Amino acid sequence: MNIGVLGAGQLGRMLALAGYPLANRFTFMDTTGHPSAGIGDVMIDTDQKHLAAFLDKVDLVTYEFEHLPVALVRAIEEHTPVFPSSEAIRICQNRAEEKALFDRLGIPTPAYRLVEHADELEAAARELGCPVVAKSVTEGYDGKGQAVLRDPADAAEAWRSINHPRLIVEAFVDFVREVSIIAVRGRDGQVVFYPMAENVHVDGILRYSVAPMPDLDDSVQQIADGYIRALLDELDYVGVLTLELFQARDGSLLANEMAPRVHNSGHWSMDGAVTSQFENHLRAIQGLPLGDTSARMPTCMVNVIGSEGDPAAILAIGDAHLHRYDKRERAGRKLAHVNLLAPTHAELLDKVRACAALLPDAPEPRFSFE
Amino acid sequence: MNIGVLGAGQLGRMLALAGYPLANRFTFMDTTGHPSAGIGDVMIDTDQKHLAAFLDKVDLVTYEFEHLPVALVRAIEEHTPVFPSSEAIRICQNRAEEKALFDRLGIPTPAYRLVEHADELEAAARELGCPVVAKSVTEGYDGKGQAVLRDPADAAEAWRSINHPRLIVEAFVDFVREVSIIAVRGRDGQVVFYPMAENVHVDGILRYSVAPMPDLDDSVQQIADGYIRALLDELDYVGVLTLELFQARDGSLLANEMAPRVHNSGHWSMDGAVTSQFENHLRAIQGLPLGDTSARMPTCMVNVIGSEGDPAAILAIGDAHLHRYDKRERAGRKLAHVNLLAPTHAELLDKVRACAALLPDAPEPRFSFE
Repeated sequence: MNIGVLGAGQLGRMLALAGYPLANRFTFMDTTGHPSAGIGDVMIDTDQKHLAAFLDKVDLVTYEFEHLPVALVRAIEEHTPVFPSSEAIRICQNRAEEKALFDRLGIPTPAYRLVEHADELEAAARELGCPVVAKSVTEGYDGKGQAVLRDPADAAEAWRSINHPRLIVEAFVDFVREVSIIAVRGRDGQVVFYPMAENVHVDGILRYSVAPMPDLDDSVQQIADGYIRALLDELDYVGVLTLELFQARDGSLLANEMAPRVHNSGHWSMDGAVTSQFENHLRAIQGLPLGDTSARMPTCMVNVIGSEGDPAAILAIGDAHLHRYDKRERAGRKLAHVNLLAPTHAELLDKVRACAALLPDAPEPRFSFE
Repeated sequence: MNIGVLGAGQLGRMLALAGYPLANRFTFMDTTGHPSAGIGDVMIDTDQKHLAAFLDKVDLVTYEFEHLPVALVRAIEEHTPVFPSSEAIRICQNRAEEKALFDRLGIPTPAYRLVEHADELEAAARELGCPVVAKSVTEGYDGKGQAVLRDPADAAEAWRSINHPRLIVEAFVDFVREVSIIAVRGRDGQVVFYPMAENVHVDGILRYSVAPMPDLDDSVQQIADGYIRALLDELDYVGVLTLELFQARDGSLLANEMAPRVHNSGHWSMDGAVTSQFENHLRAIQGLPLGDTSARMPTCMVNVIGSEGDPAAILAIGDAHLHRYDKRERAGRKLAHVNLLAPTHAELLDKVRACAALLPDAPEPRFSFE
């Protein structure tokens, strides 16, 4: 089975590493001119001239990046199965569509308004109560195209800085922590759920994920399972889907956004779960039985960003698993991650602190359950 | 770090899969004309014309196959570090040298004789007491170049059939089981040991390995650790070394043979140990800290030979990890292996039987500890 992947970054690289043992082969289509997968057959196609050649090579198509032209993905679907479908991409790349879907399925979200003018932005800020966050409805990635309004009077400046015809304005949520749920749906409709992760972001970039959480009520996991199952079934989805949520002080969950792909907050599963998100995505899209999503042990994923730090010292930490992406160092760039496992969360936190101390750009690791 | 690998089969493939997360790149040199690694940069060089080009690409060299011309490896060592060294290859590819080393280091072996003529073979068979096994001193691989003598009178026919100028003749051992010990030595001399495995061979080909063993005395593991440490230190060895042994009814160990490389009886470590033999080999040869060799759980490696069986059904077994080599099916060919994990050996045996039932060519799984 030759699997075509749209995008050729570290997510594609890790998909391939999980897929070789399943006797899969990989062809990547990079549209940026800067592929970093470093594995498989990488086609660079910045002007869509080589699409036919790509499709000739592959038996099915998946993607590691959802900000793709929907028309392109639909054109591919005419020839070759694409999992997840173009419909998932269409919704996930538009925050207004995504929120409408959440609303329709009864998945709670922070209060929001859609605005198409600076005046409407000011009114929404007034109505929702500042601070609010305004985001372009499309092309959002890693915190870009956003602005925080501390006062309705900031509206004009925020409108100019985002520079987009349509924004979504969201009320701030008094959350205790950011969490995510990752689930996998097979071609036969079977669904499996990973234990939820607590995610620590700094400046909109994920830095740490811990799964399972030591203090998560089973009932909360079940609510999250229900939300993501509703999304998977509604979209007749095949593959890994990620839903990011806020957990409020009373334990309740509010959906933030979803990603139709393997996700950084699921990298812990590469060592910490019986079956990784990457292997389960590949099992799902090929119609193979899904693997066990249980955690082996409390696990923390530490992102290595900007600088590799001291990889040899990281490898000296017990049960530390380093996953480098073989990229050049550059400020703010995701270069690698480390999965740390320990029998208890207390021991895990000690390892996380030891690991963070070896990474010059790592923020102080702080979790809600400490 | 670009790592050059002599040989391009499934062991090289699995080395590469373990090495990409360490940001290693791989260049394979295949001298057979039939590489199967299916990954990395594969150079086919059946007449040693491309050796210089290979060496230009790589920072250090290792190998997945020890039946290489020693002169070739020595020539490489003049230019580029080779781990393990050519001295390990020289000894491991000659059973007489290997046995002499075991003798010198006080590592017990079955009684043996070296013979250079059919008459000497007959005398050795008489002296050791039949049955005996006669093997060519060089070029042994997976049970080829061997004959069993049930009577000294079989000597002339055995001599003709093996057709080699020098044989080693070994007394049969009344062993309870075949076992192996795998250890890793770093560039700084640090040594770590994997839990020993029980290995089930059929027709000289490994079919099952179980590690850890439920009934192995700690003292026996310590004796094996001592034997392999003596070999590692004597050879100033860097990387993974495998020592295959017989365990006699009284628990004692007799060394059979060693392999200066990652080994099929260590494949269980890919899922069953904290750090796999492949990653630890790469850590060792690059001078990185060695990883924890502890077992996570009782694990059984099931070799998939000749026919792939039903991979989808295998993936439906809980905590089953399939590692396919992406080769064409052919009788007797190693195509894949499955690692099965379970919390107890009793549950493990149930899974092994379920897995074997899905493989048309799998022999009945039987272990000494049942």
